[in-house]
Amino acid sequence: MPLPTSLHLHWAICAAEKKKHLLLEKPTALNVEELDKIVDACEKNGVQFMDASMWYHHPRTCKMMEMILDSKLFGHVKAIHSSSSYSPGQEFLENDIRVKPDLDALGALGDAGWYCIGAILWAMNQTLPTTVTALPGVARNSAGVILTCSASLYWEKEETVATFYCSFVSHETMDLRVYGSNGTCYLYDFIIPFDENSASFNFTSGAKFVDLHIGWNVKPQVVEVASQLPQEALMIQEFASLVKAIKVSRSKPESKWPRTSRLTQLVLDAVNKSIDTGLQPVHM
Amino acid sequence: MPLPTSLHLHWAICAAEKKKHLLLEKPTALNVEELDKIVDACEKNGVQFMDASMWYHHPRTCKMMEMILDSKLFGHVKAIHSSSSYSPGQEFLENDIRVKPDLDALGALGDAGWYCIGAILWAMNQTLPTTVTALPGVARNSAGVILTCSASLYWEKEETVATFYCSFVSHETMDLRVYGSNGTCYLYDFIIPFDENSASFNFTSGAKFVDLHIGWNVKPQVVEVASQLPQEALMIQEFASLVKAIKVSRSKPESKWPRTSRLTQLVLDAVNKSIDTGLQPVHM
Repeated sequence: MPLPTSLHLHWAICAAEKKKHLLLEKPTALNVEELDKIVDACEKNGVQFMDASMWYHHPRTCKMMEMILDSKLFGHVKAIHSSSSYSPGQEFLENDIRVKPDLDALGALGDAGWYCIGAILWAMNQTLPTTVTALPGVARNSAGVILTCSASLYWEKEETVATFYCSFVSHETMDLRVYGSNGTCYLYDFIIPFDENSASFNFTSGAKFVDLHIGWNVKPQVVEVASQLPQEALMIQEFASLVKAIKVSRSKPESKWPRTSRLTQLVLDAVNKSIDTGLQPVHM
Repeated sequence: MPLPTSLHLHWAICAAEKKKHLLLEKPTALNVEELDKIVDACEKNGVQFMDASMWYHHPRTCKMMEMILDSKLFGHVKAIHSSSSYSPGQEFLENDIRVKPDLDALGALGDAGWYCIGAILWAMNQTLPTTVTALPGVARNSAGVILTCSASLYWEKEETVATFYCSFVSHETMDLRVYGSNGTCYLYDFIIPFDENSASFNFTSGAKFVDLHIGWNVKPQVVEVASQLPQEALMIQEFASLVKAIKVSRSKPESKWPRTSRLTQLVLDAVNKSIDTGLQPVHM
């Protein structure tokens, strides 16, 4: 369902009630209360819910997680930074549906920030942060819709920090940088790979600068991951296979996907709340 | 002068009063009031002041600035992220001079954060931010010295935001990522190059993802910059040439270097103040 966000609540519930499985554009809803109604409708009607964040489905994403989870190589996640930005120009900033308060009211936070928040939660194995704080520098268009914002996330128990930056007024970026205690994993095209059939990321482990500061003992390793199909096709394949399992084998819908969407939406709501309350921290 | 920070005030002033030119380890002082006394002593005695941030002197730094200042290639600086971290182990965290409250009391903020703040100010052409806010997730050792912290900087007039992360408990990182309106400039070894005699950075300009999301129209370009001498030697060369100009041509000491140190120290003090006041924003 590729409709503007403000139309999701009505049409997604209609679709679920018609027993249609639901692949929903992100951001999933204007807030988590709306999303919960959509997900409830899907559950009641036994249909699969998934949001259309395609990058989760690229095999590169899986390979990165495998390396991050290798505690010898990577250690614990200590910090994360993500960005998602592009600069579509003045006409977009005034007139695109993504900056209209009655259509995609969440602006750059909903469109670009959704990916950053999702990537940060992905790196944290879908653990909610303790505190979410929006940072100074929120920019809006004349209708009040967010064009740029950034935020800080903090996990008290894990002692992990994250920041992200999302914008409609910066050059194209899609950064994810995960800092571990023993390693670092990073890439600059996590949402849409530079090249579709062979995507890569960088990984460094056990690096130190050598004596006399004349270099590093270990250089970043480029890990290439081939993909036979575009990530969008892999997403549809995964969705179709879950639907098939429900239809043919009478399986229950996979709960991982609505849960992932819900956590992302919860953090997005917290950023929004922090912005609305003058950058006060929001405790989750 | 490579002494611990808390000894700088006394010995740096002594050196200046003996008409010795002063190349001072960073962080320059425990706070800007101390640094001002040191710089005043240097001015009164007509000696050159420079802090030992060696990366300013690598030719790569100059090449990056040239490309960032090219408004067609890069546009305006919209956001910056920097990190400086390393993980020297438990023995260091308890016993090194860099975590002793009576020696290098500024801990990771003074040691690693100095570079991040310096790099952010460098990218902003030494313009002070409007607001500095420390972020949740400050970690300290048993003596109360900072082992990890991060902060957000905001320039109101320029509508630019920056974040940095510095730590003694994360894998080795030295990131600088500058996001422009038309381009992106980034590197992962800005403090100590991976290889000394040929250092590089990445630069992307005018990138868009192409239709159907099957890739990007422009890939990051790797810009290599050769250097005949280590950056430390280049720093000494620059310092020596300024000293020679003072001695031989009776030039005045170059004010750019004490000014750069002072701005870095001012922002560092603001991060510290924000931490001490429960993460309140500090207006500069």
